[in-house]
Amino acid sequence: MKDVADSLPTYDDVIAAHERIAPYIHRTPVLTSTYFNELTGAELFFKCENFQKAGAFKVRGACNAVFGLSDEQAAKGVATHSSGNHALSLSYAAGRRGIPCHVVMPRTAPDAKKAAVRGYGGQITECEPSTSSREAVFAEVHERTGADFVHPYNDPRVIAGQGTCSRELMEQVDGLDAVIAPIGGGGMISGCCLTLSNIAPNVEIYAAEPEQADDAYRSFKAGHIIADDAPVTVADGLKVPLKENTWHFVSHHVTDILTASEQEIIDAMKLTWQRMKIVMEPSCAVPLATILKNPEVFRGKRVGVIITGGNVDLDKLPWMKG
Amino acid sequence: MKDVADSLPTYDDVIAAHERIAPYIHRTPVLTSTYFNELTGAELFFKCENFQKAGAFKVRGACNAVFGLSDEQAAKGVATHSSGNHALSLSYAAGRRGIPCHVVMPRTAPDAKKAAVRGYGGQITECEPSTSSREAVFAEVHERTGADFVHPYNDPRVIAGQGTCSRELMEQVDGLDAVIAPIGGGGMISGCCLTLSNIAPNVEIYAAEPEQADDAYRSFKAGHIIADDAPVTVADGLKVPLKENTWHFVSHHVTDILTASEQEIIDAMKLTWQRMKIVMEPSCAVPLATILKNPEVFRGKRVGVIITGGNVDLDKLPWMKG
Repeated sequence: MKDVADSLPTYDDVIAAHERIAPYIHRTPVLTSTYFNELTGAELFFKCENFQKAGAFKVRGACNAVFGLSDEQAAKGVATHSSGNHALSLSYAAGRRGIPCHVVMPRTAPDAKKAAVRGYGGQITECEPSTSSREAVFAEVHERTGADFVHPYNDPRVIAGQGTCSRELMEQVDGLDAVIAPIGGGGMISGCCLTLSNIAPNVEIYAAEPEQADDAYRSFKAGHIIADDAPVTVADGLKVPLKENTWHFVSHHVTDILTASEQEIIDAMKLTWQRMKIVMEPSCAVPLATILKNPEVFRGKRVGVIITGGNVDLDKLPWMKG
Repeated sequence: MKDVADSLPTYDDVIAAHERIAPYIHRTPVLTSTYFNELTGAELFFKCENFQKAGAFKVRGACNAVFGLSDEQAAKGVATHSSGNHALSLSYAAGRRGIPCHVVMPRTAPDAKKAAVRGYGGQITECEPSTSSREAVFAEVHERTGADFVHPYNDPRVIAGQGTCSRELMEQVDGLDAVIAPIGGGGMISGCCLTLSNIAPNVEIYAAEPEQADDAYRSFKAGHIIADDAPVTVADGLKVPLKENTWHFVSHHVTDILTASEQEIIDAMKLTWQRMKIVMEPSCAVPLATILKNPEVFRGKRVGVIITGGNVDLDKLPWMKG
């Protein structure tokens, strides 16, 4: 895993990333809802990364990594292990550059996810559903191909890419008091920390996490990384633990981490679909669920809410029976 | 039914409507999709009235009627019969003006729509799910209250209000070759005809209809109105027949009417949710279903596609089992 630079990204890296990825991403719209403003007593500005290319903000970091490679490096392709949006996004980015993308996924991953990765041109190598197998198989693929390893969130190029999202949001909305985003491995939140601590240091930064995968919350309270082995939550994008680079940003710049129960997440997700007419993942509902649960924290404030992605299985919505 | 003015609206009425309703409606965004452009060979511009106030374009016509009333007329309130979105929209508009709104709805209408009508302050009287029952029950309510009857689509004030949608679309997108919208009673299509025949007479106007509720298609081919009493289709906003005012516009200005099967409508709906991450009603999927079915009609053209509404029961999605 030597390909991960061990230095932290700077705000100059965010600016460079934004210029680099602009041709390949959407400048996503910001939506507002009178209904949710009245319900929460806050003014909410929803940054809709569910409308992003490949369906999630992850394409920002993936494109920054892929299009920052030298031609020589790029020729060998990129590689990652992920069964979710990072795999899709890296496959999309590699496809746009015309280079290979190797993805190690558990053989037990849903066929729909494998099909989506292949749809963007990703080449899947299957592993057993265990950490040891994943690491062994990934090491073999990495060794064999010489591809550049792009970690889903701990990679500084990825964090700088995610930082472009809050940069856009600050250009689109004046006078924000706070920004809130979901936290899993911490890539998006680290991007927010990197950008906002440089251009708007008074804006509060909240991270929202499922109670049943609250390792970031517990890490934040304990002052060091606590990792769960296999948390279970409907917010399947938020199961992964913090790593050293994301922990740096979280521990230095996050105002607070708030949590919500599974039912609160599902209710907030369904309510958003009903009232805002947007399709988003369960993970994206966690911020709104925590705002509804802690209205006193947000009342009277102008709050940017990052809707991180929209890749959801329409045949398995969490409020469907059976 | 004497309250319906029997004259046809003019484009000046559209301009006046736009000014009158501007404080109460959204100027909805236009979205594009690389995926659908590649799939269809056309350039599609989706006018997202699913993001409109009260969740559908119908609020345009409803607001135009409600805010055009004299104070004396307004004091008795407004009344209508509707299978859904017009009821919501008229309730919303009446609520904004602070006057009563009486709604006759089929008892089979989705619970989500009934609850939403009540949420906006509308007072519901239920009827059987047929045109004849609806009209009989409505006559009683109308007689009892003296409220101003705002027909869901045949009312000239409503047609002028709906005409503001395509007026916005023409301001938002240059060089459109065609516009397509669903057709039920023909209010939206008539608004498109009224506006486009005045400001962009070379733009083709297509109407899209379910095969299983194809009365407008058959009327168009026959040259006179053919009405079904109770058609069955998943596109529940499109079951109502044309009336004399909408027939005038359809027969004079529509380029063609295209139809799609139930499965084609459901497939187009699900595909739009998956790829564009927007929640829309089955009715709104009919235009895209007909474009996918008749690519030769639209290939190489810049086409405005009106997404008419987003009020759908999330517990009864048409691809759900049971």
